[in-house]
Amino acid sequence: MSILLKNGLVYLPDGAVEKLNIGIESEIIDYLAAAAPERKYDEEKDMSGKLLIPGLVNAHTHAAMTLLRGVGSDLSLQEWLFEEIVPIEDKLTADNIRVGTELAMLEMLACGTTSFSDMYFFPEVTAETVISSGMKANLNRPVQSFDPAEKGEDSRRIKEAVALYDGYDGAGDGRVKIDFCVHAEYTCTEAVTRYLADIVREKKGNLHLHLSETEKEHRECIEKYGRTPLRWFYDLGALDSRAFCAHCVWVSEEDMELMRELGIGAVHNPTSNLKLGSGFAPVQKMLDMGISVALGTDGASSNNNLNMLEEMHLASIIHNGYTGDPTIMKPSSIIRMATRNGALIQGRADTGEIEVGMRADIAAIDLSAPHLRPNVDTPALLCYSAQASDVCMTMADGRVLYENGEYLTLDRERILFEAERAAKRLYN
Amino acid sequence: MSILLKNGLVYLPDGAVEKLNIGIESEIIDYLAAAAPERKYDEEKDMSGKLLIPGLVNAHTHAAMTLLRGVGSDLSLQEWLFEEIVPIEDKLTADNIRVGTELAMLEMLACGTTSFSDMYFFPEVTAETVISSGMKANLNRPVQSFDPAEKGEDSRRIKEAVALYDGYDGAGDGRVKIDFCVHAEYTCTEAVTRYLADIVREKKGNLHLHLSETEKEHRECIEKYGRTPLRWFYDLGALDSRAFCAHCVWVSEEDMELMRELGIGAVHNPTSNLKLGSGFAPVQKMLDMGISVALGTDGASSNNNLNMLEEMHLASIIHNGYTGDPTIMKPSSIIRMATRNGALIQGRADTGEIEVGMRADIAAIDLSAPHLRPNVDTPALLCYSAQASDVCMTMADGRVLYENGEYLTLDRERILFEAERAAKRLYN
Repeated sequence: MSILLKNGLVYLPDGAVEKLNIGIESEIIDYLAAAAPERKYDEEKDMSGKLLIPGLVNAHTHAAMTLLRGVGSDLSLQEWLFEEIVPIEDKLTADNIRVGTELAMLEMLACGTTSFSDMYFFPEVTAETVISSGMKANLNRPVQSFDPAEKGEDSRRIKEAVALYDGYDGAGDGRVKIDFCVHAEYTCTEAVTRYLADIVREKKGNLHLHLSETEKEHRECIEKYGRTPLRWFYDLGALDSRAFCAHCVWVSEEDMELMRELGIGAVHNPTSNLKLGSGFAPVQKMLDMGISVALGTDGASSNNNLNMLEEMHLASIIHNGYTGDPTIMKPSSIIRMATRNGALIQGRADTGEIEVGMRADIAAIDLSAPHLRPNVDTPALLCYSAQASDVCMTMADGRVLYENGEYLTLDRERILFEAERAAKRLYN
Repeated sequence: MSILLKNGLVYLPDGAVEKLNIGIESEIIDYLAAAAPERKYDEEKDMSGKLLIPGLVNAHTHAAMTLLRGVGSDLSLQEWLFEEIVPIEDKLTADNIRVGTELAMLEMLACGTTSFSDMYFFPEVTAETVISSGMKANLNRPVQSFDPAEKGEDSRRIKEAVALYDGYDGAGDGRVKIDFCVHAEYTCTEAVTRYLADIVREKKGNLHLHLSETEKEHRECIEKYGRTPLRWFYDLGALDSRAFCAHCVWVSEEDMELMRELGIGAVHNPTSNLKLGSGFAPVQKMLDMGISVALGTDGASSNNNLNMLEEMHLASIIHNGYTGDPTIMKPSSIIRMATRNGALIQGRADTGEIEVGMRADIAAIDLSAPHLRPNVDTPALLCYSAQASDVCMTMADGRVLYENGEYLTLDRERILFEAERAAKRLYN
């Protein structure tokens, strides 16, 4: 199968926007030029007036938590988590995870997201769901341990994490990748973290962490261990392989220096950090230092949606407001965070840019709505003015998954029906 | 003309959401009950699955600046304003204002906005444009004066302001109201401000001000006059009549106390304050004190769109992040700010709530999209999850102006064509 996207405005890796034709053979971009190609493609799509960007990468989420959307709004973090969220999570079944993930994918595809990095229960169910959807995802089995006596080799979570890796890494023609995960410093013991770190090193794996999300977490770690959460992970060998950290709101200068040195990625989750009152991550500082910062929505329970264009918009403006400097967080940085940086953190070097030889993960944004007129600066228009509803096509590995409100691989009505039914059971 | 909105989920003044029928006779709500009405209405609309809220009031904007959308992004405030915006504003014609305002109204109607408070050039053109659109607006001729020798009675701007008031206040069956306006403390002399204040008092007018938007403005006023901008206006008699102030980012405790005492309204513009690096207005504090706080988008040049749902979303979360308290800025407060408080600040006591006897300014939100499922808390869903694209109907004074992507009073294609043509001339 080959496809030609004709006459779109293509966002290029250097930040330029040019009217170009994109040829795609199977899952790879094989042509990119203003002139029409000589070869014939099976299908042609006229993309006049559409902005074509790399597919958005939601680099930190808990997809199935769509079923918990809106639960316990406006409570303190402790009440929200332990009185509202956890009791419902205890009731979640594998089938809930399937439909919650499907609902998340409906939402993500409709806002141009092609790939996500997830952290949640029943990841093998999520893996199967991702495989059949045509999307891409990095999944893991989160490891937690609260028992100081538990040995790493006895951890059921670690056994599950390894089984998941052995069973699913590279599944779905490489669309599913399996990462490892320690949920957070404050939810895991040193012994279990160290044991998992050894496995990650041996497997050359990728480690997904929650890091310094709240001031309390960061401060209490220093009080308990005499070091920051990042340094705690480092000292246990958890940063010997590739790793990326969600939130990073309270990281210290030394933490950032270590992240830069080791090539540790950060995932910025602006909505969640604001809504839960966690604070403002030092994102421009990290970017200036050369740390790879990606963007994520976090789960729908703390967001309350999975709209990457909204995260791009927020990341574009909140740091100006917080620092008093309107010149920071430029559109080119934001777009890179939402695309290429996310792809690299996922270990997908062949995605995240529109270029010959790259995988064809592409989102199209229709620039015709009144709120996008006139267009004097396309990247600014995307970051400051565009809405998820302007996304008119989402493609992963050269396959159209969403177009003009229609889903090509997911049964919207069945999923919405099942999600409502699941929610009724969970809340009654 | 009468119309019945059947079986919608109606957001009531006390924050409850109930499945009700809304009957509208001419421009007034004459029926509100779960039971079907006995009388017959000319038209019936099934609103099952739709949330019906009061029409949103954009309480501070510069509508025609849609033509300057995206100009000079990511510059310092001074460079942005004086090197990019002002030179283009100098070229704006009356016809530009007409089409810029029409473009703004396309955008505003599509996100459920029924009324706006504007501050810009050629307000008589804006007035005519508003009248033919069916929307509502409070307009003014902004007064500025940089010449210390200028006397109030010689101010051409004040003469224009009075002529506008005499010519248009109450026009369009009351849909157009004329306010007075001093652009800001730093752009007007004491003599001219005092002279205008006398006129506003005499006419029992409503005064629209920019106030303490930036730290620089606030501090320099104190350095120059030994008092805050609010106190400066007060001492000149400008707060003897009704008044409302946009931004209020840097207002002092004493300023807020004075605002409360005098019943001065505040308009919060979160996107603009963030994007321009102005800071975080003390909104929850003002609400707690009993100050009437409304919401606005500011102009599209500093936003860069006119999406009131986006402002509601931002106002819901940014103050949590800034104060570290996730329990503040509850959905009921946010919805009141975006509806009833805006209406009251506009002097429209008969709008902004869905109740028998009120004017029928109503927006309908379709709750069927995946990002609105499941619905465990409707007001939270509106503030945290909904998008402008979920708005499916906008009605002012009982007249449908926008429905399912179609405009009933505005010619979308003609306006978009003319806006693009105007932008080409302005930027070449």
